[in-house]
Amino acid sequence: MWRELRPLGRHPDSGGYRRFAWTPADAECRGWFEGQARLRGLVYEVDRNGNQWAWVGDPGAGDAVVIGSHLDSVPDGGAFDGPLGVVSSFAALDELRARGVEFTRPLAIVNFGDEEGARFGLACVGSRLTAGQLTKEQAHRLTDGDGITLPRAMETAGYDPDAIGVDSDRLDRIGAFVELHVEQGRALDLSGDRVGIASAIWPHGRWRFDFRGEANHAGTTRLVDRRDPMLSYAETVLAARREARLAGAVATFGKIAVEPNGVNAIPSLVRGWLDSRAADQESLDAVVTGVEQAAHAYAREHGVELDVVRESFTPVVEFDHALRDELARILGKEKDPALAVPVLGTGAGHDAGILSGRVPTAMLFVRNPTGVSHSPAEFAAEDDCVAGVRALADVVEGLAGK
Amino acid sequence: MWRELRPLGRHPDSGGYRRFAWTPADAECRGWFEGQARLRGLVYEVDRNGNQWAWVGDPGAGDAVVIGSHLDSVPDGGAFDGPLGVVSSFAALDELRARGVEFTRPLAIVNFGDEEGARFGLACVGSRLTAGQLTKEQAHRLTDGDGITLPRAMETAGYDPDAIGVDSDRLDRIGAFVELHVEQGRALDLSGDRVGIASAIWPHGRWRFDFRGEANHAGTTRLVDRRDPMLSYAETVLAARREARLAGAVATFGKIAVEPNGVNAIPSLVRGWLDSRAADQESLDAVVTGVEQAAHAYAREHGVELDVVRESFTPVVEFDHALRDELARILGKEKDPALAVPVLGTGAGHDAGILSGRVPTAMLFVRNPTGVSHSPAEFAAEDDCVAGVRALADVVEGLAGK
Repeated sequence: MWRELRPLGRHPDSGGYRRFAWTPADAECRGWFEGQARLRGLVYEVDRNGNQWAWVGDPGAGDAVVIGSHLDSVPDGGAFDGPLGVVSSFAALDELRARGVEFTRPLAIVNFGDEEGARFGLACVGSRLTAGQLTKEQAHRLTDGDGITLPRAMETAGYDPDAIGVDSDRLDRIGAFVELHVEQGRALDLSGDRVGIASAIWPHGRWRFDFRGEANHAGTTRLVDRRDPMLSYAETVLAARREARLAGAVATFGKIAVEPNGVNAIPSLVRGWLDSRAADQESLDAVVTGVEQAAHAYAREHGVELDVVRESFTPVVEFDHALRDELARILGKEKDPALAVPVLGTGAGHDAGILSGRVPTAMLFVRNPTGVSHSPAEFAAEDDCVAGVRALADVVEGLAGK
Repeated sequence: MWRELRPLGRHPDSGGYRRFAWTPADAECRGWFEGQARLRGLVYEVDRNGNQWAWVGDPGAGDAVVIGSHLDSVPDGGAFDGPLGVVSSFAALDELRARGVEFTRPLAIVNFGDEEGARFGLACVGSRLTAGQLTKEQAHRLTDGDGITLPRAMETAGYDPDAIGVDSDRLDRIGAFVELHVEQGRALDLSGDRVGIASAIWPHGRWRFDFRGEANHAGTTRLVDRRDPMLSYAETVLAARREARLAGAVATFGKIAVEPNGVNAIPSLVRGWLDSRAADQESLDAVVTGVEQAAHAYAREHGVELDVVRESFTPVVEFDHALRDELARILGKEKDPALAVPVLGTGAGHDAGILSGRVPTAMLFVRNPTGVSHSPAEFAAEDDCVAGVRALADVVEGLAGK
């Protein structure tokens, strides 16, 4: 199963994955999902927002247990972020069938569309639409780096962009959603555990900083005559690191777009994206306010105009405590009860975080020995992945087994 | 003539020109050149390096007077940088024919290919190849941002990349080359002159700074665990401005490439290009050495690897003094001899600078009221352009008229 998925959307030079929403690479991954569903005789559905579902039992019966994750990737992403959760879900179903488990509740495996937001700049588009956190009108305004709008991209991929929107009926049928994911840090590695349970997702957001100056010849324009937005950008990058350190948070400028982006041209526009996250809202506010104030001061100094736009924001997500405790109880049974499964917070956003506002939701993390993620070097050991599948199967058996 | 050229390769959003070497926009401009040559009954040739020539008289007779410039552009460049020199050359020929001037020497109008280096990162490829400043083997290694090599791009455009190389026979036929160009500064505006003569081109070069860190998740990687190359890049941008100010020079980071360039990914690579120029070699060395040393220190501090590659370099170019004085004499006759035509240096590189090592070469500048260049806002007033055409016609008549 893993072997078939591995080559899809992989870049031959970097070895990283480029599975962006509604591209041919994405379509190949989606085709793989449908194939796995049909192989197992599951009821296959695509919802109005393009999320894929594979059902055991009656989708309409209600109180379903849903497991799954996403298949898309960041640019040059790793093999595990997303796909591990989907592959483990199918493998957990195989394990449960091998155990002869019968289900008291409907079970579904889901692949949420456009989780990473690599193409349109907004993460978790599929789950946001479904949960009503993103309206059809807002989604229709999303545009990728080549100027292609989300509706046009969906149409090109054979989906109906006019059908998208909130899907309460579908959410009402779900009794619990459990997303398994590779850990994107080293907490499990440091504690020596293969699998952990999520406590909360830090509040996080993306802010776009547009520094507009004046394009001019790099060789003939005197320094005093310049309005060079690259200078204000550079100072803002350093301010972000400083503010994050002071607040015990994280802040990153990882994406940039420059116009005209010529070696011998002073830029007219430097557009940088700030990603920031913190354990609590106050700390996050302190970072972002600090960076914005510094950026405005730098821009004024260089005669540069600055617009800051908050492109997305997700408040702190506390996962459902009852479900979390239930998972801890189920997984605790597996081993010495003295060895509790660790419960940990995370700075990463997930579809589980979006759904948690509507549905009891939990997450399982699988150990990542280096903590590296969003990179071709992302890794999880085979033994740990197997432990993740077993934990997921245990959870589903505990929640829905007879 | 100007009207026909104006829409070619113009971007509908920015209003700027995107005439990059061997692209369809470039081919349209080249088609326009050939059409203008044929309209006037000139002998049209393309040399082995793809430069276009239009001859009056016998190309093989020797001691030719050559005028012209280039038609390609930087990304979102202005309408004048390059095309003004080519259009003015055809217009000057029309003016000379209207005056009934007969020529004692062959006359040619030239369009040098790939002057801006916007696509392959090296400026003046057409003239460098011809003058032997760039070998066929070096040119064959040039690659654009999409991974397309220069030979493949030439083939796609219908040219033979195996034919390129030094063209001494052609240079030996040239007695003088005069390039007219829009000024890329405000010296003529400040002195109140329409037209000026170039004295020298500042030494200048391009250096590529590759900062390599480790791609990782922007939300889950602790600041202390990061090797984020964007930070060293930002510090280096600020160091470049500082060093240039100290040396009375210019230094610019106007082009950047980031991998993976995702909002929620710490970059693995930040590649920035430094363009720096100074009135003399010592000052330029001081700037570049200062920036390199600072960049290496910043990189070490952040656990980032740094490679600096000099991609191109042109030493100071003093234009031929005899030809320069001859131009001043010819143009001085036109008006009150007390009002000498101003002679000025420039920080911009030109094909004239490349050819000056092999052929007596001079440049005329036409006033630019804002000094803005390499931008859609680049401008020259119609009266000043007409004055430029008249000056160029005078020069050709003075050098080659009976």
